Amino acid sequence: MHLELLTIGDELLLGFTVDTNGAHIARELATLGVGIVRRTSVSDDAEAITAAVREALDRTGAVITTGGLGPTADDLTRPAIAALFGRALRFDERHWERLREIWRERGRPGELPESNRVQAEVPEGADVLPNAHGTAPGLWLEDDRGRWVAMVPGVPREMRLMLAEQVIPRLRRRIPDHGAVIRSRAVRTTGVAESQLPGLLGEMARGVDGLTLAYLPSPSGVDLRLTARGLGPDAADAALERGIAKLHEAVSRYAYGRDDEDLAAVVLECCRAKGLRLALAESCTGGLLGARLTAIPRSSDVLLGGVIAYANAVKVEQLGVRPETLAAVGAVSQEVAREMATGARARLGSDIGVGITGIAGPGGAVEGKPVGHVCIAVDDRGTLRSLAGNFIGDRAEIRYRATQAALDMIRRSVEA
Amino acid sequence: MHLELLTIGDELLLGFTVDTNGAHIARELATLGVGIVRRTSVSDDAEAITAAVREALDRTGAVITTGGLGPTADDLTRPAIAALFGRALRFDERHWERLREIWRERGRPGELPESNRVQAEVPEGADVLPNAHGTAPGLWLEDDRGRWVAMVPGVPREMRLMLAEQVIPRLRRRIPDHGAVIRSRAVRTTGVAESQLPGLLGEMARGVDGLTLAYLPSPSGVDLRLTARGLGPDAADAALERGIAKLHEAVSRYAYGRDDEDLAAVVLECCRAKGLRLALAESCTGGLLGARLTAIPRSSDVLLGGVIAYANAVKVEQLGVRPETLAAVGAVSQEVAREMATGARARLGSDIGVGITGIAGPGGAVEGKPVGHVCIAVDDRGTLRSLAGNFIGDRAEIRYRATQAALDMIRRSVEA
Repeated sequence: MHLELLTIGDELLLGFTVDTNGAHIARELATLGVGIVRRTSVSDDAEAITAAVREALDRTGAVITTGGLGPTADDLTRPAIAALFGRALRFDERHWERLREIWRERGRPGELPESNRVQAEVPEGADVLPNAHGTAPGLWLEDDRGRWVAMVPGVPREMRLMLAEQVIPRLRRRIPDHGAVIRSRAVRTTGVAESQLPGLLGEMARGVDGLTLAYLPSPSGVDLRLTARGLGPDAADAALERGIAKLHEAVSRYAYGRDDEDLAAVVLECCRAKGLRLALAESCTGGLLGARLTAIPRSSDVLLGGVIAYANAVKVEQLGVRPETLAAVGAVSQEVAREMATGARARLGSDIGVGITGIAGPGGAVEGKPVGHVCIAVDDRGTLRSLAGNFIGDRAEIRYRATQAALDMIRRSVEA
Repeated sequence: MHLELLTIGDELLLGFTVDTNGAHIARELATLGVGIVRRTSVSDDAEAITAAVREALDRTGAVITTGGLGPTADDLTRPAIAALFGRALRFDERHWERLREIWRERGRPGELPESNRVQAEVPEGADVLPNAHGTAPGLWLEDDRGRWVAMVPGVPREMRLMLAEQVIPRLRRRIPDHGAVIRSRAVRTTGVAESQLPGLLGEMARGVDGLTLAYLPSPSGVDLRLTARGLGPDAADAALERGIAKLHEAVSRYAYGRDDEDLAAVVLECCRAKGLRLALAESCTGGLLGARLTAIPRSSDVLLGGVIAYANAVKVEQLGVRPETLAAVGAVSQEVAREMATGARARLGSDIGVGITGIAGPGGAVEGKPVGHVCIAVDDRGTLRSLAGNFIGDRAEIRYRATQAALDMIRRSVEA
């Protein structure tokens, strides 16, 4: 089965919103073996919406739209597509009552505003797709030739749930069992340049056993992604499992995880397995390492906490960094990173302490310490390791790369 | 001038890459008054590329493509579009020499691989657009009716420079001076539901003085974006300035900034203006508030630092939260948030202390304290304020909404 995706909203054409919905929907559908053959974005304009849906239906007969279902005047998806299908909009009293109930159940103040009434207008013959996270319901509209449009909201959280609970089950019923799927698996690496990987991979540099290989560089590192096309689900899984194992072996020194595993989650798991507790001391990353670790549920059994030591006085008073060290080598130095790591470990009573200090830019560079220069230290049960790296990118990338390098240092230390 | 944007790559249709190029190009072109009327993505498939370019040329006569210009077998943009224009590909010896020189100048190892020869194949009559950051040159191809396609690489860094240095100057020469522009401005609000805004805006709910109004909800709050189309640059700016001022007045209670201002930057500026220093005590947000504040350059003159007090022992030992308070009302309580705020202020010696404690989920809910329940306190020079809120969304959204609410509390306190 092939379909097209249409994302609707002025913000997409003005560039104020990056279209993350499209990527999410594409990934979810690929796991079903449903391929998106074209993605289109148009503005909140009835004519543009109508033309794009008509063309997509002519090509594939199957369209998912996101956006333009809200209660305000710029929400035109529902009337435009109803008109294209020649269906009148009918105010649905029962549906309106349900929207009002949901509003009350969620403990929102007062009554659902009358401005939301338009959301209870349903095209004749349409299925209403309930929205568990918002007031804008989705719609499924089908013509007598079996051509259909599924309309889901543009708000990512609402879209994701409706896709999973309403749209995908309907698609499953339309596709034959054990058809070919499109599946991908990845080995995640960090601390190695993209251009070094083909050398490490040798004959696998272009693909493994008929699976295509893509190199995906990002501030996390480089992901090596294998994709199987045209195989049934079991054959695809088996081929990918074998391929991923081969790739992993070739780059094992730099591989920290698979698929969409986050290095923060890998580190928490490594520490948890050995019963080790973690404490942080962050200067240039200012809490970003803590934020990454605590983004993972149940991080509290490993992470005790940390100190955001942005000012030098906080480094001295809260972490015990020696003023003489600061005076002698400066705050951005391996020595200070080491005293921060040891201080965090001692003050918070953890097994492992991590210290990060650096120059995130855009200002602050000094002789011998350019923007991107970051010192990281790990005190793992009394064994101190440190490094100084020069990370590339803007302030956000430098900070992210610094947390990634710190996490990888913890991983290597705990796994050593 | 209107044009269409075509982004090319299997990655985009499999959903492994979020299309950030589209948003960047749209924003850059809007400042010239060049509107993108449709965005399309197709896979690395010659037929799909040809069809999409042909249709876009028929609609607007002007297309920018990204991607598919590399040296590998899946890079089909150049031959597909050359064939559509009826132009032969010619190997350009001088261009090949230049590519080899660039390779050497950049200190790359060895010689430019022969596999890159295809990048020196230029369609007859095409302009080559040099690539300062990579080996894939761009191309500008135009037919005898003045219809054109600009092909730029898909790697964001290469695309951005080529757009700025090669494509935009060519577009400028094609549009009349002081022509109409597309400009937008926004009022950013937080702490108010999207559906409450039309009531506050009254007659402006659909637009202001001919400017279109869009409601853009996100975990930051709801942005109200006004867009001017068809006016010259000065008239557009003046109309937007008036419109934004009217909107701001109507929602002033909830408005914290304009355009793409980050509330963290607004708070730093408020504190800086009054010479106030800030210290943080974060439990459920685990460093995210610190990360947001330190993401802003020069935050160090306001933010001293903070304590990530994830474990209760850290709350007690590093912040002075009383064990009796923890025992009596639990860690997720306004009382503990208040003691955290006061503790951060006292221990780090700041003017303002902020405490955040809550249940980010997915687990951890208790009677009367559901997932999303977060307590926030601000101690502003000895004056304590606190609140308890129930934030919606997944773990990431709840945490982000909590930092946004904490920042808004600081802003209101400092501005009071």
